[in-house]
Amino acid sequence: MPGKPKKACIVGSGNWGSAIAKIVGHNAARLPQFDDRVTMYVYEEMVNGRKLTEIINETHENVKYLPGHKLPENVVAIPDVVEAAKDADILIFVVPHQFIRTLCSTLLGKIKPTAIGLSLIKGFDQAAGGGIDLISHIITRNLRIQCAVLMGANLAGEVADEKFCETTIGCRDSRLAPLLRDLIQTDYFRVVVVDDEDAVEVCGALKNIVACGAGFVDGLGLGDNTKAAVIRLGLMEMIKFVDIFYPGSKLSTFFESCGVADLITTCYGGRNRRVSEAFVKTGKSIKELEDELLNGQKLQGPYTAEEVNFMLKNKGMEDRFPLFTAIHRICIGELSAGEMIECIKHHPEHIPKTTYVEEDETATETKTTG
Amino acid sequence: MPGKPKKACIVGSGNWGSAIAKIVGHNAARLPQFDDRVTMYVYEEMVNGRKLTEIINETHENVKYLPGHKLPENVVAIPDVVEAAKDADILIFVVPHQFIRTLCSTLLGKIKPTAIGLSLIKGFDQAAGGGIDLISHIITRNLRIQCAVLMGANLAGEVADEKFCETTIGCRDSRLAPLLRDLIQTDYFRVVVVDDEDAVEVCGALKNIVACGAGFVDGLGLGDNTKAAVIRLGLMEMIKFVDIFYPGSKLSTFFESCGVADLITTCYGGRNRRVSEAFVKTGKSIKELEDELLNGQKLQGPYTAEEVNFMLKNKGMEDRFPLFTAIHRICIGELSAGEMIECIKHHPEHIPKTTYVEEDETATETKTTG
Repeated sequence: MPGKPKKACIVGSGNWGSAIAKIVGHNAARLPQFDDRVTMYVYEEMVNGRKLTEIINETHENVKYLPGHKLPENVVAIPDVVEAAKDADILIFVVPHQFIRTLCSTLLGKIKPTAIGLSLIKGFDQAAGGGIDLISHIITRNLRIQCAVLMGANLAGEVADEKFCETTIGCRDSRLAPLLRDLIQTDYFRVVVVDDEDAVEVCGALKNIVACGAGFVDGLGLGDNTKAAVIRLGLMEMIKFVDIFYPGSKLSTFFESCGVADLITTCYGGRNRRVSEAFVKTGKSIKELEDELLNGQKLQGPYTAEEVNFMLKNKGMEDRFPLFTAIHRICIGELSAGEMIECIKHHPEHIPKTTYVEEDETATETKTTG
Repeated sequence: MPGKPKKACIVGSGNWGSAIAKIVGHNAARLPQFDDRVTMYVYEEMVNGRKLTEIINETHENVKYLPGHKLPENVVAIPDVVEAAKDADILIFVVPHQFIRTLCSTLLGKIKPTAIGLSLIKGFDQAAGGGIDLISHIITRNLRIQCAVLMGANLAGEVADEKFCETTIGCRDSRLAPLLRDLIQTDYFRVVVVDDEDAVEVCGALKNIVACGAGFVDGLGLGDNTKAAVIRLGLMEMIKFVDIFYPGSKLSTFFESCGVADLITTCYGGRNRRVSEAFVKTGKSIKELEDELLNGQKLQGPYTAEEVNFMLKNKGMEDRFPLFTAIHRICIGELSAGEMIECIKHHPEHIPKTTYVEEDETATETKTTG
C-alpha cells in the first residue's frame, strides 16, 4: 500500500463494535499500513453519572457493552459521528440496522470521498416498495462509497475472549481485500476473503429464518434427524434465494464461515432459535415473546421471513421456497408450527434433477391389491 | 421397469437394518415393481429362550434391536444369509463393517449375477497395505456386483418413529437410481440420489473424525464460535480429501444429507463427540473410554483418523489436513487436546486463494515501534 497509513473508524460501539475495536486497534498499532489512532463513534450516554466516552477514553473499557475487556489505548471514543468519521479511510459500520439510513444522511458529504466501508451489520432493511435492501447497498448508494461486508459465526463475547474463530469478508474489489484482511485478521480471528459480497451479506440475514425453523423443530420435540433436514433445506433455500435475487455467486461461498458455520451456530444457539422454541411450547405470539424475552426488541427471523416472503410472493415463487414460506406463515399465525413438516415433505430438493427415462410409466403407481 | 418384480433382501437386522426393513417392506408391498416378499438375514440368537428369527416372523417385531416397532408382515427373517440372499435382485447391506469381507466370501457365487447392492454401512475398512477401502468397493470386488450407497442424518430410532428426515443415495448408474429411490423413499424418509457414490460413502466415515474435534472443543469449553470453525474446517478437509483420493465429485454433494446434515448431527449428538468430550474432561485414554462407555466397542472416529492419517502421511500431505492430523495425534496421545487449535490457526483454508498484487511488500510486516 503506497502513501500514507490508512485511518480506521469504527462506527458503532455496542457489544460487537467493541469486540471488533479491540481487534482493529491491535492491528492498527501493529501494522505499518494503518494509522495507529482508531476512532470509535460512541453514542453518548451516562453511565453511573459519567459520560460513556470519557469512561472509555480513561479506562479503555466499554463498561456498558463489553465489560471486562480492555480496548487498546489507541482506540479513541468520540461522541460525534462526523468528527469520528471525517478523516477515516476505512469506515467499519456496526450499528443496529434501523439506524443506517439516518447515519448515512448525517455523514454524506462529510467523509473522505475515497473512503471505503466495511459493514458488520446483520439483517436486511426494508426496500422502498417492500422486499429487502442490503445494508451495504444502502451505504454505497447513500454515502457514495464502496462497501464490503464481514459476516461469520462470531458471537461477540467469544471474540472478545479471544477464542479461536473464523469470519468471512465479502469484497468485490480484489485490490482492497488484503487491506481489509490485514486490519481484521488476528491469530485467533481468522479471515477468508471472497468476492461474493452480496451472498455473504444475504447469508447473515437468511440464517435467522432457518433458525426459527430449527426452533420450531426443538419446540415440537422432533429430534436430530428432522432438525438436520430443516437446517439443510434452509441452506438449500438460502442458496437458491441468492441464485435468483443476487445471481453470479459461487457455491463455495456457502461453505465459508458466513454460510454453513454461522447457520449451524444460529440454529443450535442464538435467540431466534430460542424464541421460536418458546413460541411452540408456550403458544404465545412472536410479539408477546419479544416483549417478554427480548424487552420488546424485534426478533430478526420473523421480520426477515416477512420481507423475503414479500419478494417471493411478488415473483410467484412461494412454492419454490416451501420452508421459508411455511416459517413466515407460522410466525404470523396462519399455520401451526406442527404443519411445517407437511409443507416441506415434497420439497423441490427431493425432486430428481435428472429426468430418468421411465421404461414403464405404471411402475411408480401404487398397487391396488396387497 | 420391465420384467418380473424385483426381490429385495436386507442383509442385516440390527437397529438400522430393522428400521430400513420397515421402510423397504412397506414399499415392496405397495409398489408393483417390487416383489412383496422381502427377506431379512438375521444372525440367529436366542432371546428369552426363543430364536430371534421365530420371534420376528411370528410377532413382526425385532424385540432385540428395534423393540416397540412393528415390521411389515411381508418382511421374512431368515437365519441363513445364502438362503435370504440367493433370489434377491437388490441386496441391502447393513451389517457392522468388520463382517463385510466374510459375508462376501459366504455369498460369492450364491447370489444372482444380475443382483445390485446398496450399502448402508458407515465407516471404512482397512486396505491390505494400510489406508482405507470403501465398503461398496469391497462388495463390488468380492461379490462382482454393482453397489450403490445410502448415507445421511439418519438416527435409526428416529427413522423407525417415522420422524421426517432426508437421506442420500449415491448411485453411479442412472438407470438404477429410480428403482433404489422408489424402494427407499417414503413420505417421511426423503431421498435425493446423486451420482457421486464414493463421495457419499466417504462423507459417512470422515464425519466421525470431525465429531472427535467437536467433542474436544466441547470438552475444553471453547464455545460456539470455535466449534463452528472446527466443524467448518472439518468439512473443508472432507471435501479436499475426496478431491484428492476420489476425484471427480461435485461440490454440491457435500450439501446433501450425507454431507453437511449428517456432519451437523454427528457433531452435536453422536457418540464420537460424546466420548471425545469425556476424553478431555477425564484425561482417560480412548481405549479406556471405549471399555467404560461403549462396552469395549471401537469408536469409529479415532480408528478412521488413524487410517486416514496413514494415507496422508504416505503422500506427504499431513500439513494440508491439519485438523485431521491433529485429531489423530490427540487420539493416540501424541498431542494434548488443547493443542488442536494451535494446529489449525494457520489452516490452508485461511491462505488467500487468489494472489493479490502487493504494491509494497513491506506492507504486511510488523511495526517495530508502537
